[in-house]
Amino acid sequence: MIWCNSSQKMRNLPSNRCDRGKFSCYFAVVEVPISAETMSAEKTAITPTRAQDFPEWYQQVIKAADLAENSETRGCMVIKPWGYGIWELIQQQLDRRFKATGHQNAYFPLLIPLSYLEKEAEHAEGFATECAVVTHHRLEAVKDPQTGKTKMIPSGELAEPYVIRPTSETIIGAAFARWIESYRDLPLLINQWANVMRWEMRPRLFLRTAEFLWQEGHTAHETQEEAIVETRMIHGLYEEFLRDHLAIQVVAGEKTENERFPGADMTLTVEAMVQDRKAIQAGTSHYLGQNFAKAQNISFTGRDGTTQHAHTTSWGVSTRLIGTLIMAHSDDDGLVLPPRVATQQIVILPITPKEDTKQAVLDACQALAETLRHQNFQGDPIRVHVDTRDVSGGVKKWDWVKKGVPIRIEIGPRDIETRKVCVQRRDQPSMAKEFVDKEEFIRSASDLLGQIHQSLLDRSTAFRDANISVCTSIEEFDAHWSKENPGWLYTAWAGTPAEEETLSKQHKIAIRCIPVPHANLPTGLKGAAGDKCILTGRDAVSYVIWGRSY
Amino acid sequence: MIWCNSSQKMRNLPSNRCDRGKFSCYFAVVEVPISAETMSAEKTAITPTRAQDFPEWYQQVIKAADLAENSETRGCMVIKPWGYGIWELIQQQLDRRFKATGHQNAYFPLLIPLSYLEKEAEHAEGFATECAVVTHHRLEAVKDPQTGKTKMIPSGELAEPYVIRPTSETIIGAAFARWIESYRDLPLLINQWANVMRWEMRPRLFLRTAEFLWQEGHTAHETQEEAIVETRMIHGLYEEFLRDHLAIQVVAGEKTENERFPGADMTLTVEAMVQDRKAIQAGTSHYLGQNFAKAQNISFTGRDGTTQHAHTTSWGVSTRLIGTLIMAHSDDDGLVLPPRVATQQIVILPITPKEDTKQAVLDACQALAETLRHQNFQGDPIRVHVDTRDVSGGVKKWDWVKKGVPIRIEIGPRDIETRKVCVQRRDQPSMAKEFVDKEEFIRSASDLLGQIHQSLLDRSTAFRDANISVCTSIEEFDAHWSKENPGWLYTAWAGTPAEEETLSKQHKIAIRCIPVPHANLPTGLKGAAGDKCILTGRDAVSYVIWGRSY
Repeated sequence: MIWCNSSQKMRNLPSNRCDRGKFSCYFAVVEVPISAETMSAEKTAITPTRAQDFPEWYQQVIKAADLAENSETRGCMVIKPWGYGIWELIQQQLDRRFKATGHQNAYFPLLIPLSYLEKEAEHAEGFATECAVVTHHRLEAVKDPQTGKTKMIPSGELAEPYVIRPTSETIIGAAFARWIESYRDLPLLINQWANVMRWEMRPRLFLRTAEFLWQEGHTAHETQEEAIVETRMIHGLYEEFLRDHLAIQVVAGEKTENERFPGADMTLTVEAMVQDRKAIQAGTSHYLGQNFAKAQNISFTGRDGTTQHAHTTSWGVSTRLIGTLIMAHSDDDGLVLPPRVATQQIVILPITPKEDTKQAVLDACQALAETLRHQNFQGDPIRVHVDTRDVSGGVKKWDWVKKGVPIRIEIGPRDIETRKVCVQRRDQPSMAKEFVDKEEFIRSASDLLGQIHQSLLDRSTAFRDANISVCTSIEEFDAHWSKENPGWLYTAWAGTPAEEETLSKQHKIAIRCIPVPHANLPTGLKGAAGDKCILTGRDAVSYVIWGRSY
Repeated sequence: MIWCNSSQKMRNLPSNRCDRGKFSCYFAVVEVPISAETMSAEKTAITPTRAQDFPEWYQQVIKAADLAENSETRGCMVIKPWGYGIWELIQQQLDRRFKATGHQNAYFPLLIPLSYLEKEAEHAEGFATECAVVTHHRLEAVKDPQTGKTKMIPSGELAEPYVIRPTSETIIGAAFARWIESYRDLPLLINQWANVMRWEMRPRLFLRTAEFLWQEGHTAHETQEEAIVETRMIHGLYEEFLRDHLAIQVVAGEKTENERFPGADMTLTVEAMVQDRKAIQAGTSHYLGQNFAKAQNISFTGRDGTTQHAHTTSWGVSTRLIGTLIMAHSDDDGLVLPPRVATQQIVILPITPKEDTKQAVLDACQALAETLRHQNFQGDPIRVHVDTRDVSGGVKKWDWVKKGVPIRIEIGPRDIETRKVCVQRRDQPSMAKEFVDKEEFIRSASDLLGQIHQSLLDRSTAFRDANISVCTSIEEFDAHWSKENPGWLYTAWAGTPAEEETLSKQHKIAIRCIPVPHANLPTGLKGAAGDKCILTGRDAVSYVIWGRSY
């Protein structure tokens, strides 16, 4: 491994902002193969750095990678090709898993009659009311006689307004009520890929937007037991997906009653820790009991001939996953993509200093790309791009650094002679490079992608583990939350919902979850947390994780 | 080939409606391997038949195949798994073609600010104004003091209302205006898969629904020439897709000025003829000139340093394709799926008359399925399902007939001994079956799917060709449209837009298109149509196809 000096001018090419930023790696608690000293004088491709201003860094990473942007529709984003490509891969890979576990896709109306929500409101407290309401079905064009401009006026008022689905339990439940007659129709296992809309007051690209893309699973079962098995199975599927596809080690757990989805009897969650040590709820799986079934009359004739209400579940992940992976992995040089969801996994950069060797280099690059495309990584052909743009090598390199491509390959005239390629890994410092025998690289490309995945996952796990502390004293607990970027606390708990709410509001925190028994947490946490509730001193009923969140 | 008697009870199992219907095949003009006499006494799985009531037959095919249903949201459908599966395959296969031709997917907001439409209205006459308008962003729950019921009231009125996109030219154009600066940013080739909404007054499942799913391509180019090349390339891509994936021979042509997309300089269309001889516009590709670019200021610095407006295109197909393929191929026993878009291409039905041989039969079926899944058809693994439901063989068979699966295989205890399988093709009469050596079937399965595709395409082509007549006299022209299910007419034309409109309104027809020179039409049409306009007697300017349409 050879360490080079950074080509400082290149890093900031797009914005021309070259402010010197102190490098302070959030991953510092983990062993990282760069010393803080070496890097402190470095310029970074993203300004500000994570340490300087994490929220602004996040916006700048998105901008530099060309993932998405705000639109003129309030709170709604435009997902640009590089960002949408990530979503397509997430969709494709999750969809396979859903189908492999017996689910089928379907599509339900975007607009929900108000009467459906009224029915639900009778049964479930506290569901969201910030949603887009359609009240008219026509526009009338009126010419302003003074300016000559055309104005559009809503007309054709609807007798019953509709809302744009914030989630589809009600409208899918109505379909389930029509479809299910007998226990033979169960289980009914449906998933929908769709856009949904919630009128968010403080939108933030990917993490919280008015419109977002998601999948929502909705299932109906004969018994409570089967529905709970489904809820847990999907919970496990999400945990695995985050780990094996997004390289994020989450904490899988159950929400407390306070934090449950309105109308659910049980909400399971996967909580990701990102680099400012906040939590992001990355996916949820709800057991809805018979609550929605009763509200919507989803009933069936049981094996014993009696009419029974179905037990239903719902579960989902959204484009929020993209925000999560950005905040989890990216660094001060921009996006870092886990290989499985990288639109391009390998980018080949032809280095063509002289006209007479240019074609040979381009040919070598295209040939290598074709060879690599016939290799598989995790069952899919490796995705390879050759950047033939007529711009300098430095510009190309930094574009792909900022876009987070896992492996960059440079090939110049000399490399053709020596049969080597220059390999650069996005999980290592941007200036690190290694010259590798070309055939050897072809043989090991898939392994290398696997190693990059593993190194991101190891980092994510180590960072998470280093930032979950056990706490047994309420004084320490109270003091903890005034720290900058406090990590999560793990405590014994026996408080009431009201006590939980008071404590949460006091510190702007929440119980993120009650980790499930098999949660892959550092050993010894539970023992160290004692057996008395951190707040009340009562005998512990559960062990919980507290944290700030997005 | 063995012809069996129909097991009459089975055909109508779901509805128990066994009305005797006179069989009258719309394909009668084409050679069909059943005599009308034999079939006239047959019962059909779908009631009414195509001859009895085509529109109602269409609804019943959808119902019997479990493709989709109406919802309580006005004009919006629920696309059920068997229908959505078709859409997923259409998406997947089209998406590959779009990407192979350099397009990238992205996602734009669902809601369009009214101001965008006002700007467009200044530039383009006649765009649709029947659309869903969002005027509020909150619901307030109010308890009715008398009934105790909760009412939801829209609140939080928006200063500027939004419409739900009926199409996205305006909002994507606004993004293009931000993204494009120089000729180096061109061409910009974007596609979006999305839901759109138009407030349709007379909705019909798949063909015309308020909300529908589609793809919309939007591209920007440096020159008119390049934009027209793109428009034509996509037009050709649609024509091929209909032919090679949906087994429908369309007429590819250009719309007259009257029939163009508002704001387009040129609209290309692919027109499918379905079995009641009406036309369905199955896909369109528009060259928008600089019209939208001027309205939205999509400009760039050209090679000569001057500021220029881009030339843009847009193009799309929708879930309407599903309605088209139903009406094009299905018969009086239900849906007939072209193999490439069939969620299951082969269904294996275990025949298990006795308990002691049941497991052996089931094992043989599963083993055959696994073997077949390792075969490819047109580059994708063959999709095979084993129907292990505990219902009678007849019920199973007719369920899959009505669902349109291309190949049904029956395996019973005797077939295991003889190493044969009973093969039934959906493009042949439902009672036709052939016993084939199992190994031979495995070897030829992919070819057989290809043959079924070809036979559907041949039928579609022959039917279309048989129902396009040349017309040179206005008297015959006028008389033609009073026939029941009139076919299309091909005429010479030199009328004005006003004359075209008058003639169209008179007969409730339209010029479907001016076929492109390479359109795959029966030879000799043009020569037979003479050189004088059918209406005005002027020298022909173009040759056009007239028809009724959905």
